[in-house]
Amino acid sequence: MESAVARPAPRPDTPDSVLLREIREQPAALARLLEHRAEYASVARILRARGVDLVRLVGHGSSDNAASYGVYAFGLLPAWTALRDSISLAVYYEAETDFRGSCVIGLSQSGQTPDVVAYVERARAGGAFTVAVTNEAGSPLAEAADVVLPLAAGSEQAIAATKTYTAQVAALALLAGYTAEFGQRIADGIEQVTELISELLPGLERRLSEVAVALAFVGRMFVIGRGPEFATAREISLKLLETCRVAAAPLTATDLAHGPVAALDGLFPVWTIASDDPLLPTVREAAARARAAGATLFVSGTGAAMIPDGDYYVPVPKPGLSLLTPLLSVVPGQVLSWALARAKGLDPDQPHGLTKVTLAP
Amino acid sequence: MESAVARPAPRPDTPDSVLLREIREQPAALARLLEHRAEYASVARILRARGVDLVRLVGHGSSDNAASYGVYAFGLLPAWTALRDSISLAVYYEAETDFRGSCVIGLSQSGQTPDVVAYVERARAGGAFTVAVTNEAGSPLAEAADVVLPLAAGSEQAIAATKTYTAQVAALALLAGYTAEFGQRIADGIEQVTELISELLPGLERRLSEVAVALAFVGRMFVIGRGPEFATAREISLKLLETCRVAAAPLTATDLAHGPVAALDGLFPVWTIASDDPLLPTVREAAARARAAGATLFVSGTGAAMIPDGDYYVPVPKPGLSLLTPLLSVVPGQVLSWALARAKGLDPDQPHGLTKVTLAP
Repeated sequence: MESAVARPAPRPDTPDSVLLREIREQPAALARLLEHRAEYASVARILRARGVDLVRLVGHGSSDNAASYGVYAFGLLPAWTALRDSISLAVYYEAETDFRGSCVIGLSQSGQTPDVVAYVERARAGGAFTVAVTNEAGSPLAEAADVVLPLAAGSEQAIAATKTYTAQVAALALLAGYTAEFGQRIADGIEQVTELISELLPGLERRLSEVAVALAFVGRMFVIGRGPEFATAREISLKLLETCRVAAAPLTATDLAHGPVAALDGLFPVWTIASDDPLLPTVREAAARARAAGATLFVSGTGAAMIPDGDYYVPVPKPGLSLLTPLLSVVPGQVLSWALARAKGLDPDQPHGLTKVTLAP
Repeated sequence: MESAVARPAPRPDTPDSVLLREIREQPAALARLLEHRAEYASVARILRARGVDLVRLVGHGSSDNAASYGVYAFGLLPAWTALRDSISLAVYYEAETDFRGSCVIGLSQSGQTPDVVAYVERARAGGAFTVAVTNEAGSPLAEAADVVLPLAAGSEQAIAATKTYTAQVAALALLAGYTAEFGQRIADGIEQVTELISELLPGLERRLSEVAVALAFVGRMFVIGRGPEFATAREISLKLLETCRVAAAPLTATDLAHGPVAALDGLFPVWTIASDDPLLPTVREAAARARAAGATLFVSGTGAAMIPDGDYYVPVPKPGLSLLTPLLSVVPGQVLSWALARAKGLDPDQPHGLTKVTLAP
C-alpha cells in the first residue's frame, strides 16, 4: 500500500497536472468535434444507404467503455442493435462470422491498438462497412477502415484518458443521431453540454478535493450505473483504478443485488450514478441495498436528489437531451480521480506501470 | 471487516455445506442435462429452419456469466453473432428494436427474474424466436418463451450458484453444437468432462484448503481470463464476492494492461486463467505484467504450466474439445470460494444479505 497523506487543497487556478488540464479542456474538445459534424452526417447517410442494422463496436479500456454507451445511442436513436463485439473471436480464433450487412466502429485514441486494427481488417475483408473513430487520421486504424471520423480531441498527454472518452461518447451520439435524422438535435445538445461542463467544473474541483480526504484510505469501491450510465460506471472505475490504485469495480444496479452486495461493509463504499430516467427506480433500489449493508454511499448524477440517505452528494445538471447525460455524469469521476490521487500523495500523471499507447496483445 | 480465522482443514468426506454438496454434484447434474439432448437437437433444428443468425442472450448474475460463454459457443460453432443483450433497452426504455430473425435465449435458474421475463415477452412480441433455459419448467420465464429447454441441474439450494452455472454453460454448448451439426461431439465431450470433474475434485478440495489459508486476509483480487474463459473469470469473481467478501473483479487479459495494472501491489493478488489455446500468449503477457507489478500470482487452467513465475498453481486437465474447457476451469474457483469462506470463518451457505431468487428490479 502507498502511504496515504490526506492533504485538503484549494482548487488550483493553474492546473497542477496534465490530467486536470485535460479534464478542463473537455468543453473545447467537444466544440472541436462539432466542427466535424458534416463528416458524421455523411457517414450516417452511407450506413442508411447500405441498410445497416447491426453495429459492432470494438476498442479496449476507455474506448471499450465508450462502446458501452454506443449500445444505447444506437439502440435508442435508430433502434439498431449494437454490440461490443469480441475481438478474440475474429482475431485469435478466426471465427467465420458473416460480417455482411453490419457496420464496424473501431475506437482507439491513437489508432494503434494492434488487435483492434486486426479486427477491423478482418471484418472489412468479410464484408462489414468499417469506420475508424480516432484522434489520428494517419494511424494504422484509420488506414484499415473504409472511412475515418475524427475525434478532434487533440493529442492526449495524460495517461488516464478523459477528453478522449467524452469525445468518443459524443461522437457515437452524433453518428447514431444522424442515422436517425436526429443529428442536428444531438449537435445542439452537445453544444449545451459543453456550457454545462464549463459551469460545473470549478465547483466540482473544490467539492471533490474535500471529499477525497475522506476517501484517502479506501482500497475498494463499487460504482453502480445502469443503461447508458453503465458506460459511466465502467469509466469512473477505470479512472480510480489507474490513477488512485483503488480496486473499483463497475456493476449494473441489478448486478449488485445478484451477489456482490454480500461483500459490502463499512469499509467498502459504493458510488451510485443516479440519472433521472426510467431506470432510476432500479438504481434507487440498489442504493438502498448498499446502505442496508452498511456501505458509505456516494451519490452523483442528474437524479442524485432522488436517492435518500447518501453520505456524499455530487449532483450534475440535467441536459436538454437525457441521452447526453453520460457526458456530464462522468465528470465527477474524472475530477475525483485527480483529487484522490493528490490526497493519496500519488502523481495523477504517472500511473504506476502504465504507458499511453498499449501495444501489448 | 470480518475477523479472519485461518483454519486449515482436511477435505471432509461428508460435505460440510450445501455449497460443497452442490459443487460435488456437478458431474451428476451434467449427466442429467445430457438425457435431454434430443430436446436441444430439436430446438437447434428450429433455429436453423428459421434462418436465425443473431442470438440475444439475457440473464443476471451467474446466468449472465454463462451468457458470456454463449457468445463464444455460437461464435465458434455455427459462426453466428451472439450478444449479451441489453435488458434495459427493451424493458425500461421500450426501444423499438427489430427482433425479427433473431433468437432470444433467456437464462434463469428459477425462471422468475422479473426483467428477464419482461424482456422475453417483449422480444417474442417483436418477432424473436424465444427459448427459456431454466430448472423450472412451470416458471414465468418458461411460460413467456416459445420453447423451454430444461437445465435439469435439480433444485439449487446454495445461494451461490455452482451446478446451475456449469449446466448453463453445457446447455449453451449443446444448443450451439446442434445448430452446427456438431451436437453429438459436444454431448460426448460433456460426458468426458463429467469424468474429469469427478477425478479432479478430491485433489482440488485438499489443495485449495491449503491455499485458502494464505489468502485469508485478501480483500481484493483481479481474475483474468480471455475469450471463452472471460465467462469463467466473471463467475469466479462473483463466487468470491458473494461467499468470501473479497472485492474480486474480472478482467480480460488485455483490459489489465489498459489501466488496472496500475492498481496492483503485493497485497492485491491476481488469479490468471490460462487455457492452452490461441489466446494463451495474451494471458501470459498479462500474467507477466501482474508479476512485474508485485502481485501474487495464482495460476489455473489447462495452460497453467505455460505461465512462469506463479506463486500457486492449480492446473486442470485438458478435455478432448477445447471449447468445453470452461466447464473445468471454473471448478477451482468454486472450490476456493468454499475453502476461503471456511478459512475466513464465514458460512458459505449464508452469504451476507442475499436470498436465492432475486426479485428486485
